[in-house]
Amino acid sequence: MASTELRNGSRHGLTGKASILDGNSFRAENAPALTARTDSLVQRRRRVLGPAYRLFYRNPVEVVRGRGSRVWDADGVEYLDLYNNVPSVGHAHPAVVAAVQRQMSLLNTHTRYLHEAILRYADDLLTTFAGPIDQVMFVCTGSEANDLALRVGRAYTGGQAYIATSEAYHGNTALVSAHSPALSDCEPMDPALRVVDPPDTYRYGSSDAAGAAFLASVRAAIDDIESSGDRLAGLILDTSFSSDGIYPGRPGMIRAAVELVRGRGGVVIADEVQPGFARTGESFWGYQRHGLDPDIVTTGKPMGNGFPIAAVAARSEVLAPFAGTRPYFNTFGGNPVAIAAAQAVLDVIRDDELQSHALATGESLRAGLRELAGTHPAIGDVRGVGLYTGVELVPDGTSREPATGLALDVIEELRARRVLTSVCGPANNVLKLRPPLPFAAADIPQLIEALDGALTASGA
Amino acid sequence: MASTELRNGSRHGLTGKASILDGNSFRAENAPALTARTDSLVQRRRRVLGPAYRLFYRNPVEVVRGRGSRVWDADGVEYLDLYNNVPSVGHAHPAVVAAVQRQMSLLNTHTRYLHEAILRYADDLLTTFAGPIDQVMFVCTGSEANDLALRVGRAYTGGQAYIATSEAYHGNTALVSAHSPALSDCEPMDPALRVVDPPDTYRYGSSDAAGAAFLASVRAAIDDIESSGDRLAGLILDTSFSSDGIYPGRPGMIRAAVELVRGRGGVVIADEVQPGFARTGESFWGYQRHGLDPDIVTTGKPMGNGFPIAAVAARSEVLAPFAGTRPYFNTFGGNPVAIAAAQAVLDVIRDDELQSHALATGESLRAGLRELAGTHPAIGDVRGVGLYTGVELVPDGTSREPATGLALDVIEELRARRVLTSVCGPANNVLKLRPPLPFAAADIPQLIEALDGALTASGA
Repeated sequence: MASTELRNGSRHGLTGKASILDGNSFRAENAPALTARTDSLVQRRRRVLGPAYRLFYRNPVEVVRGRGSRVWDADGVEYLDLYNNVPSVGHAHPAVVAAVQRQMSLLNTHTRYLHEAILRYADDLLTTFAGPIDQVMFVCTGSEANDLALRVGRAYTGGQAYIATSEAYHGNTALVSAHSPALSDCEPMDPALRVVDPPDTYRYGSSDAAGAAFLASVRAAIDDIESSGDRLAGLILDTSFSSDGIYPGRPGMIRAAVELVRGRGGVVIADEVQPGFARTGESFWGYQRHGLDPDIVTTGKPMGNGFPIAAVAARSEVLAPFAGTRPYFNTFGGNPVAIAAAQAVLDVIRDDELQSHALATGESLRAGLRELAGTHPAIGDVRGVGLYTGVELVPDGTSREPATGLALDVIEELRARRVLTSVCGPANNVLKLRPPLPFAAADIPQLIEALDGALTASGA
Repeated sequence: MASTELRNGSRHGLTGKASILDGNSFRAENAPALTARTDSLVQRRRRVLGPAYRLFYRNPVEVVRGRGSRVWDADGVEYLDLYNNVPSVGHAHPAVVAAVQRQMSLLNTHTRYLHEAILRYADDLLTTFAGPIDQVMFVCTGSEANDLALRVGRAYTGGQAYIATSEAYHGNTALVSAHSPALSDCEPMDPALRVVDPPDTYRYGSSDAAGAAFLASVRAAIDDIESSGDRLAGLILDTSFSSDGIYPGRPGMIRAAVELVRGRGGVVIADEVQPGFARTGESFWGYQRHGLDPDIVTTGKPMGNGFPIAAVAARSEVLAPFAGTRPYFNTFGGNPVAIAAAQAVLDVIRDDELQSHALATGESLRAGLRELAGTHPAIGDVRGVGLYTGVELVPDGTSREPATGLALDVIEELRARRVLTSVCGPANNVLKLRPPLPFAAADIPQLIEALDGALTASGA
């Protein structure tokens, strides 16, 4: 059982914490301001889909069409999409549509028959790791991938206790929810789970200080595991710390902590559902920019551009104790159509050079945001790598307290200015700018102008 | 903790039990008989996908194309598909392909934006339950559906202890694996799980006797739960008892047991991944032919004809304690493309009247099989409903011991005769005939002739 300090998730220099149930969500009190059509759709959802379903925005958007980094609502209004990483190579990318249509017309079975495409794709995917990871298992969602990965790590180490960061969200199955501290307000956490603070480069002031604090936290967690009689299974982490507030940090920032976990006998699971597939620009996988050597890599969202496919890749030695003793089978996982979608995505990333595009465009985007910060002291920090950027809003330039209300107002004002995005971090005060990868340098002025207006309209 | 008798799964009149790791699987010892191409694909799989991946048949099939109830291998050889329920409305059904292509070309986002199609489909799906089930949550796989359903049932009842049948397989997540006694050789079962025998109509001799025994087993399990200080969560069951050996029984056979569970405060989860979507012919959902009133219905495989979509449908009252307190979100679940696939499947089932087709064709199929049993005493039982049929093989007409080796030989001989199927049941001696629903009366003679030849060639 974890000690109290390793469970309550209090963070260095940060007192405000919002619940995952708050944030960018429509609430019943917003209903009077809706159009008749929106209100009708909202009511129908509530009636047939039930209370777990949440909508973005006080005035939810009915999106009906998309292309590249743009979407259109039912009234034909065009929006710049700064949020969606699932249509990673662009909304409705014709190459992915064509690949799926072609394979669906031919065959869609499962992996208990031979099919060459899954092997070609597996070979192709494995080359992206450029390391000792040599096997891959296909599933349908990032949640299924992390559910499997956590069990693979436990079987390999014989340990039960994982370490995760304090706002991490790794997915929705029972096991993965119990390893997602972001849900700790409403879900029981795994009794063996230890929670560590993310390397908050903003509040620690530098990547070096944040990395050192992260190392100390991970060491304390391992010590706690061992002294309590539990046994270390490993560390599961998103190397961009997405739900924690986006802290890519300097390359290598978290390397010492990760190496400590391996040195103490745990596995390292890199959850690449968010940073993977070229988004960070500096490398194909987020962990690579930190020079890490994970035992297991999981992926999901961007892998099929919206077609449900995900994967667990691992060193064969790590996979063997689980995979060699279980007839794990995933009916849809790696079926020929899913593989066709994934192969098309990988081909587009390379053919359109989206990794270098993400690197360059992300730098330009953050340069523009930093310039904007000069006239808006509420922008406390602009951080990111590639096309993954966090803009942290604070009351003014002197305090690093989270400006949650402001951030929630700003995303509504951005929506009114035809720019879609959302918030992240424990206090929901970090704007999460994570557009489809075709987001272009030409799109930047629209965002900057909209954000300028949104901040001003929100009183910042 | 469950008593020993409720864990070891010994079954009335049945001594042989095979591991889930045996059965219809390629093994390394079969490699010398393979063609160079098949051997190469098998080796590549082993290298990049690892040891969990299993192949059907001593001589695996490389399927490259499908249409209706037919598939073709890489050499152009045509097979009659008696096994696959995922391409439920037929391999590569053009209406499903067109619906997916159309929606993928437009938009593929997620349920935090409004989209009308999910509401239309939800309304449409909810009418099929024709009962108090009034809400539905969309996920990607049957495993995700059952993982969510088990938690919904626990939140509603406050209990932990579920009852499942002795060879049930409900999916692959950590929680669902722990509630899948078919995996008990290789996975730890949930400490609170109680296992009951399925209503084996063959060995009990009648549906009445099998139903009475099932009722007694369920009562004993509930008594055991209560006397041990655990609390009943509910019963999860596939009303066709697919993995247990296929025991549809007479309509109503299991109704008393199910009503007992509800009377004692548990929820009933009907896992419709196998019998649902018109397969049984007598009703749209398998549970309906038994006159049941489940609290939760889960589905998966046939829902999108191979597109990964699944669902948990429930009474809103049952869903509320879980769904009202958790921000459960499934990124791909219910996305516009998944919904388009599912809507097309539902439309095809109705437009092509596949439910009545399944009923009539299944009856004709079993009539042909029963006639064949007259000349092959190894066919101990032919049972089923709609297009879901079990053919149980035994040594001869006098013993009901399972003829496992014979069944495994027969499916290989069927494969050689261009008919694909597999086995189920605790001893892997029940031929599982579960074709795509367009399987036609005209296909029956080919199957009967192939099975006649396969039995003879296998010495039966």
